[in-house]
Amino acid sequence: MSAPIRVTVWNEFWHENPRRHADVKSRVMNYGFSEDHAIRATEGVQRVYRDGMHKVIADHLSQQGFAVRVATLDEPEHGLSDAVLDDTDVLTWWGHIAHDQVDDEIVDRVRERVNMGGMGLIVLHSGHYSKIFKTLMGTTCMLKTREADEKERLWVIEQGHPIARGLPEYFEIPQTEMYGEPFDVPAPDTLVFVSWFQGGEVFRSGCCYHRGRGKVFYFRPGHETLPIYYQPEVLQVITNAVRWAAPADGPELIFGDHPPLENLD
Amino acid sequence: MSAPIRVTVWNEFWHENPRRHADVKSRVMNYGFSEDHAIRATEGVQRVYRDGMHKVIADHLSQQGFAVRVATLDEPEHGLSDAVLDDTDVLTWWGHIAHDQVDDEIVDRVRERVNMGGMGLIVLHSGHYSKIFKTLMGTTCMLKTREADEKERLWVIEQGHPIARGLPEYFEIPQTEMYGEPFDVPAPDTLVFVSWFQGGEVFRSGCCYHRGRGKVFYFRPGHETLPIYYQPEVLQVITNAVRWAAPADGPELIFGDHPPLENLD
Amino acid sequence: MSAPIRVTVWNEFWHENPRRHADVKSRVMNYGFSEDHAIRATEGVQRVYRDGMHKVIADHLSQQGFAVRVATLDEPEHGLSDAVLDDTDVLTWWGHIAHDQVDDEIVDRVRERVNMGGMGLIVLHSGHYSKIFKTLMGTTCMLKTREADEKERLWVIEQGHPIARGLPEYFEIPQTEMYGEPFDVPAPDTLVFVSWFQGGEVFRSGCCYHRGRGKVFYFRPGHETLPIYYQPEVLQVITNAVRWAAPADGPELIFGDHPPLENLD
Amino acid sequence: MSAPIRVTVWNEFWHENPRRHADVKSRVMNYGFSEDHAIRATEGVQRVYRDGMHKVIADHLSQQGFAVRVATLDEPEHGLSDAVLDDTDVLTWWGHIAHDQVDDEIVDRVRERVNMGGMGLIVLHSGHYSKIFKTLMGTTCMLKTREADEKERLWVIEQGHPIARGLPEYFEIPQTEMYGEPFDVPAPDTLVFVSWFQGGEVFRSGCCYHRGRGKVFYFRPGHETLPIYYQPEVLQVITNAVRWAAPADGPELIFGDHPPLENLD
Repeated sequence: MSAPIRVTVWNEFWHENPRRHADVKSRVMNYGFSEDHAIRATEGVQRVYRDGMHKVIADHLSQQGFAVRVATLDEPEHGLSDAVLDDTDVLTWWGHIAHDQVDDEIVDRVRERVNMGGMGLIVLHSGHYSKIFKTLMGTTCMLKTREADEKERLWVIEQGHPIARGLPEYFEIPQTEMYGEPFDVPAPDTLVFVSWFQGGEVFRSGCCYHRGRGKVFYFRPGHETLPIYYQPEVLQVITNAVRWAAPADGPELIFGDHPPLENLD
Repeated sequence: MSAPIRVTVWNEFWHENPRRHADVKSRVMNYGFSEDHAIRATEGVQRVYRDGMHKVIADHLSQQGFAVRVATLDEPEHGLSDAVLDDTDVLTWWGHIAHDQVDDEIVDRVRERVNMGGMGLIVLHSGHYSKIFKTLMGTTCMLKTREADEKERLWVIEQGHPIARGLPEYFEIPQTEMYGEPFDVPAPDTLVFVSWFQGGEVFRSGCCYHRGRGKVFYFRPGHETLPIYYQPEVLQVITNAVRWAAPADGPELIFGDHPPLENLD
Repeated sequence: MSAPIRVTVWNEFWHENPRRHADVKSRVMNYGFSEDHAIRATEGVQRVYRDGMHKVIADHLSQQGFAVRVATLDEPEHGLSDAVLDDTDVLTWWGHIAHDQVDDEIVDRVRERVNMGGMGLIVLHSGHYSKIFKTLMGTTCMLKTREADEKERLWVIEQGHPIARGLPEYFEIPQTEMYGEPFDVPAPDTLVFVSWFQGGEVFRSGCCYHRGRGKVFYFRPGHETLPIYYQPEVLQVITNAVRWAAPADGPELIFGDHPPLENLD
Repeated sequence: MSAPIRVTVWNEFWHENPRRHADVKSRVMNYGFSEDHAIRATEGVQRVYRDGMHKVIADHLSQQGFAVRVATLDEPEHGLSDAVLDDTDVLTWWGHIAHDQVDDEIVDRVRERVNMGGMGLIVLHSGHYSKIFKTLMGTTCMLKTREADEKERLWVIEQGHPIARGLPEYFEIPQTEMYGEPFDVPAPDTLVFVSWFQGGEVFRSGCCYHRGRGKVFYFRPGHETLPIYYQPEVLQVITNAVRWAAPADGPELIFGDHPPLENLD
């Protein structure tokens, strides 16, 4: 029997964490949002994900037979020490209000693990604007947004892809934040989902990338104020993505000066 | 435990089959080749693959834990009845001298299994010019060739792809037939291997394609007069490709008239 | 000054042609549609495109400075003689009710011109189910449909692509037939447009493909009963696509036995 | 008549510039190379490109009818002021020994011009390891190297691409530095050339990328000690690439909060 895939579920864990609610409120209101908005972004989120989004995702992945740990921003080294990463096949990433608090050194460490080590990386929702995703994409990773609790419908575009396993031809998020095109990322190596939004936009919601020895999957659903990570189809996609992103155990990348394999005379 | 992947190893089985040697010789000499060439293409091949190439490939795949059967051109329905295909997750295809003998109806059947059913298809070497591969690609699938028993070196280009599992950064075929660019196929969804040839050519030797619900992998090595399907790296690639090409169990393709999901008023 | 791009605008020209209205009506009603539907598909279309869709498209392309001719199904060789194709850089294709009436020999001829000769091919709307498009794609090219005169919004996904020249970030077709995913085509080399439909579907509406020396662009808009080919954004896309699809004058495809470029000893 | 494409040819201009020879020698010898090597990398290069590589490339592009200027590292703002970039459609980039001397602010400026403004970027040879290319790719952009003045043969892989215009099916660089796989870049949107090297390696030598509104082309040939930028086929590719990379004038990227286009009630 092969060993279980080892997953580290990373979460910013500020919206759901009462010890960070003052910081979140201050940031939200500095962006020009109302106090009501700030309350929804703190107490509101905490009501939906009492112990943090990472807990809900990690519990699900554990039930699927993966070996799961969690890590959060406020831990030393954001919980992503070399020892933890040595023991990680796939890292999932959710962040939003505190992308700037992630240490550049840790970003480099994660990037190296993906690119050179083959670790899988699954970037969720507002993680599109994390340092690690922007660095690996090389683009702004910006997009359109709207918070109107509107309906999203994710259509499967590549039915033979392992991330589509067990899904219907589309599934709905009954209430969500809208993300709309342009989504400024490189054209994905494989586009698995395209979203329809009630308000008139479309979005490339499931994007697969090879980066060096590693694989990256961006998955759109997941707004913090709504119970989206409890939805079975969403959890199914994350499960599928973990299996897809697990290291391939292909050859290491060997660079630099190279003696000729053939006689040059 | 999940059930083993069910593989059907298809082989033209004329070059290795004494009952077809007269046909092969006649075809080879009609192409303008010498009698020596025709002998190498019959008795010569038979010495390398006494019971057929399919036997060697099937034995290896069985040892990997797959549920394997074989099928050949001269069987009724070429061994590819609906019952056999109902019991097939991945079909491997080797053909060369008798592509024209494959019944169009069977080609359509296989194509439908890939496109609509999600069956994987692994096309080997001279199978590039089979009806089924040409049909699924939409191009001529022609290429350059040279039989000079020269050296080939396959470089891994996408190190994180599951088909690269367990491989070194390159491996060599000590003596092989050359295939050179242009290889008239659509740009692959993922390019896994590029070959270097001693005589000065390059070739896209490992090409992945999604086609509907199914996946197709083209793998170049495998000339019939040389013991290439005994080589461990070649067998490793075929094993990896079977795992990659196995059905994803994604949604079925639903076409035609579709009632609105939203109110159109 | 370089010579103008030579465009042949091909049209089935049955829906708009009174001499074919009996045939169209009979086919429409054989599909199980009402007599009203059959009238809309004949007299109705003829009111929108009095001299045929090809006339409207050709007039526009002439004004852009291209050298334009038209060709239709009922002409000898469907208007696509070798002499005409010798004088064609880009062929646009609209067909719907009479795909089966296109001679296989002409399909092969067009395919060879694209694949080996580098002729561009622009496939419009219901041309998705033409023999030439299905042959070049290798898939069923099927999709979902609905005729409810609903709104479509085409979003530009690849803003740096020449086919996006001069367009806003999205444009609308106020009333159209819906085409929905799954669209059973290979993942495009470049995806330029994704459509949003009022009824809840999405569609890959602008798809670029290389096929051998040639380029193929599929563009969704264009239902025959609606004045879509008079819309400026639609005509702009077709103009852009003609420029993009024009032959690149790259190397010819040279196949077959190839002497070594290097010493093999 | 449309206005000519405005090209800025950027060159590090240290290897060819006697005023920088002491710096180059010191860097080369700090890498552990011999004094002979350092002399070849300075006086040797200067003999090949007396007025700098940029002069040779710029002269050729001027003859093609482009509006050309040059810019070099040692100029204020590296010659890439906002005013210069306002007047640039396509920027070509050659750097090698002094990548670290390029100001991060200028890198950000160029990146923004590509991503948001649609400026084309053509990265030549050792520019693969420039800050601007690494930033836009998101990977290490490392590769294998060997300086043995061996033969390279570039095969055209996508014959219908505009960058292949006017080329034979392959062309040779008689003596060059080897670059070998792995080339740690994202799989290109379009792969135009693959190189064969005498010593046994292959390389993806012509790689096209969309990045936001802009286009990026990486082209391998060009070692500084050899007269490669005088070779007609190499200059032809650069000319073709300028035309391909010129801004498409597609829609601007509009991000952020977006009012609904449809009624959400």
